[in-house]
Amino acid sequence: MIYFDNSATTRPCEEVIRVINDDLRGQMWGNPGSLHKLGMISSKAYEDALGECAKTLNCMPSELIFTSCGTESANTAIEGFFKANPRAGKTVISTRTEHKCTLETLSLLEKSGYTVKYVKVGRDGKPDLDELRSLIDEDTALLCFTHVNNETGSVLPLEQIIDVKKELCPKASVYLDCVQSLGKLPISLKTMGVDMASFSAHKIHGIKGVGLLYIRNGVKVSPHIIGGGQQNGMRSGTQSLPLAASMATAVTEAEKAREKAFEEVTKINSYLRRELTARGATVNSPEDALPFVLNVAFRNFQSETMLHCLEIYEIYISTVSACSSKSKKTSYVLENMGIERSISANSVRLSFSRYNTMEEAESFVKAIDEIYELYEVKVR
Amino acid sequence: MIYFDNSATTRPCEEVIRVINDDLRGQMWGNPGSLHKLGMISSKAYEDALGECAKTLNCMPSELIFTSCGTESANTAIEGFFKANPRAGKTVISTRTEHKCTLETLSLLEKSGYTVKYVKVGRDGKPDLDELRSLIDEDTALLCFTHVNNETGSVLPLEQIIDVKKELCPKASVYLDCVQSLGKLPISLKTMGVDMASFSAHKIHGIKGVGLLYIRNGVKVSPHIIGGGQQNGMRSGTQSLPLAASMATAVTEAEKAREKAFEEVTKINSYLRRELTARGATVNSPEDALPFVLNVAFRNFQSETMLHCLEIYEIYISTVSACSSKSKKTSYVLENMGIERSISANSVRLSFSRYNTMEEAESFVKAIDEIYELYEVKVR
Repeated sequence: MIYFDNSATTRPCEEVIRVINDDLRGQMWGNPGSLHKLGMISSKAYEDALGECAKTLNCMPSELIFTSCGTESANTAIEGFFKANPRAGKTVISTRTEHKCTLETLSLLEKSGYTVKYVKVGRDGKPDLDELRSLIDEDTALLCFTHVNNETGSVLPLEQIIDVKKELCPKASVYLDCVQSLGKLPISLKTMGVDMASFSAHKIHGIKGVGLLYIRNGVKVSPHIIGGGQQNGMRSGTQSLPLAASMATAVTEAEKAREKAFEEVTKINSYLRRELTARGATVNSPEDALPFVLNVAFRNFQSETMLHCLEIYEIYISTVSACSSKSKKTSYVLENMGIERSISANSVRLSFSRYNTMEEAESFVKAIDEIYELYEVKVR
Repeated sequence: MIYFDNSATTRPCEEVIRVINDDLRGQMWGNPGSLHKLGMISSKAYEDALGECAKTLNCMPSELIFTSCGTESANTAIEGFFKANPRAGKTVISTRTEHKCTLETLSLLEKSGYTVKYVKVGRDGKPDLDELRSLIDEDTALLCFTHVNNETGSVLPLEQIIDVKKELCPKASVYLDCVQSLGKLPISLKTMGVDMASFSAHKIHGIKGVGLLYIRNGVKVSPHIIGGGQQNGMRSGTQSLPLAASMATAVTEAEKAREKAFEEVTKINSYLRRELTARGATVNSPEDALPFVLNVAFRNFQSETMLHCLEIYEIYISTVSACSSKSKKTSYVLENMGIERSISANSVRLSFSRYNTMEEAESFVKAIDEIYELYEVKVR
């Protein structure tokens, strides 16, 4: 099997599975809210997991909360920010290429009387900084951007955006979706200039069902899930140690492997860009995209056709984001980058992880050659 | 170790751990939203898990969504109901002995202009039905109750409440917190007369981090977590197969063991009631409470003191609900039942599961005898 769909989800790594089993089988299954020893053990281990995440992401443990997924993190950050800051202004600036969990939350805000201004993105997937400057006004309370786009690998010019923000709306806050950058780009929350950031375990070989939300100390956010007041009241519901500890392990392992993986994946990406372009494919990912994602349109093959042709070789890729694959045939991300429908209709996403190899990339190219040989005439 | 704190959380059972491992290690880790084979396998297994839960709970799979916990289920049901039904009336009827996830959501509604009427509960923990009748008016849109109270085991007179509802406010909806009744009382959603119900895995030997929300077909509820539109748009975020499948297994195993467990736990409960009463303890749980919970006040021992004395014997119990144990010293549930402070200050909760045995109950009584012998004079 060749799995090139790591932006959709990843295979849980051995270290993560081990931690989950340790916590399920050991003496760690107590309720962290319980006053007895079993509760204390669990509570201590939970704090350790939080500390481990904070250390790796370079922030304070008090600035992180465990959530059930990146989507919950995004909902909490954006909705919770406006609930907690009624006087902060009523305008958000974002792009139309954000993940659905951001776009849907912004759409809800619009229905409640907030203004959302969408900065255009260029062919490189990056927001137009001049337009950003022109859209900011005194009502701007929040900027919502994505560190790395999940469909194209476009990397946000974060430093430049933070500079613009500091110059034109220093009081505004910044929310950053780091789901696709975690474990791939260096993340140092203390120095990045963002106020809130979201993360997910299952994109970095963790388990589905756990994520993180960073809220910088001093930034007010209302909780999205309320009840027993767990996690300092920021996220109620009995804390799940196996999920939290496995998130910490996933983050640690990803960070440990990051530099080497980046190098390897860069080679894989360059090789595939070169070989596929030589076969008439169009690369949609910008030159300076994160190498972990390669969005490419195959000549004469519609996206889904190519996906299913590759499936026969046990090669797994995706058309658009898995979060919208069942509802929409072409990518709203590519559309907003100004990519022609004739290209986007043929576009697929290859996405890599630290476990992919150059041999797999070579097998991929061989499979493409065979597919063209077998099917091209019929398809045309 | 004797674990009598099963209402706080339970030890994950072997069947649950096995299912989680199968899903993490096998070919099931794909994203259910992906169009390729790995996605299909995962999506099919996810539907199977949903179907298994629906079958056991006697409802349609389309009436269930997986959530991250009972708290999220409660938040979604109550907030989502009013978001989706702006013309349904603005009054909720509930009690002050609900779980915090309900009480906090109701409190939020009150701040947004809704009226919440709290029915008094009696010494038996049950809502006063005459008062309930008097509180209902044409503005009543929702009744929120708990099937089994987590601190006392009080069982809601559900049939009588449904009768009152049908007579006085047939158009109103009913939300039922089934977190403590699942696997202990028969649950047949189709025939219970409720419109929404919440469930949690970790109270029935499942993993922490997954729950269920039942929404009867035809009842409108807005989603609480929005984004990619997973679970028919009712709960966005990548679905977690290991969590969903382990929930299904937890529900199935609990249901399989239910009748026998009820019998065993009834014996344990009766034995402890008798023996502890003989030692001067006051039983707070009503006579007809669910046998899985025994709330009892020990003579001359404050709750926390007894908890820590028992800890020395590796016996684990709790003072109040784990969800409020760190914030409040005495129980708001007992307080609202009209139990004197002198009693509630000495009250602890023993809570049982299908894995507890009569031998454990006997050891518990022995430990109590030793504790009285060793400490009573000092404590008094």
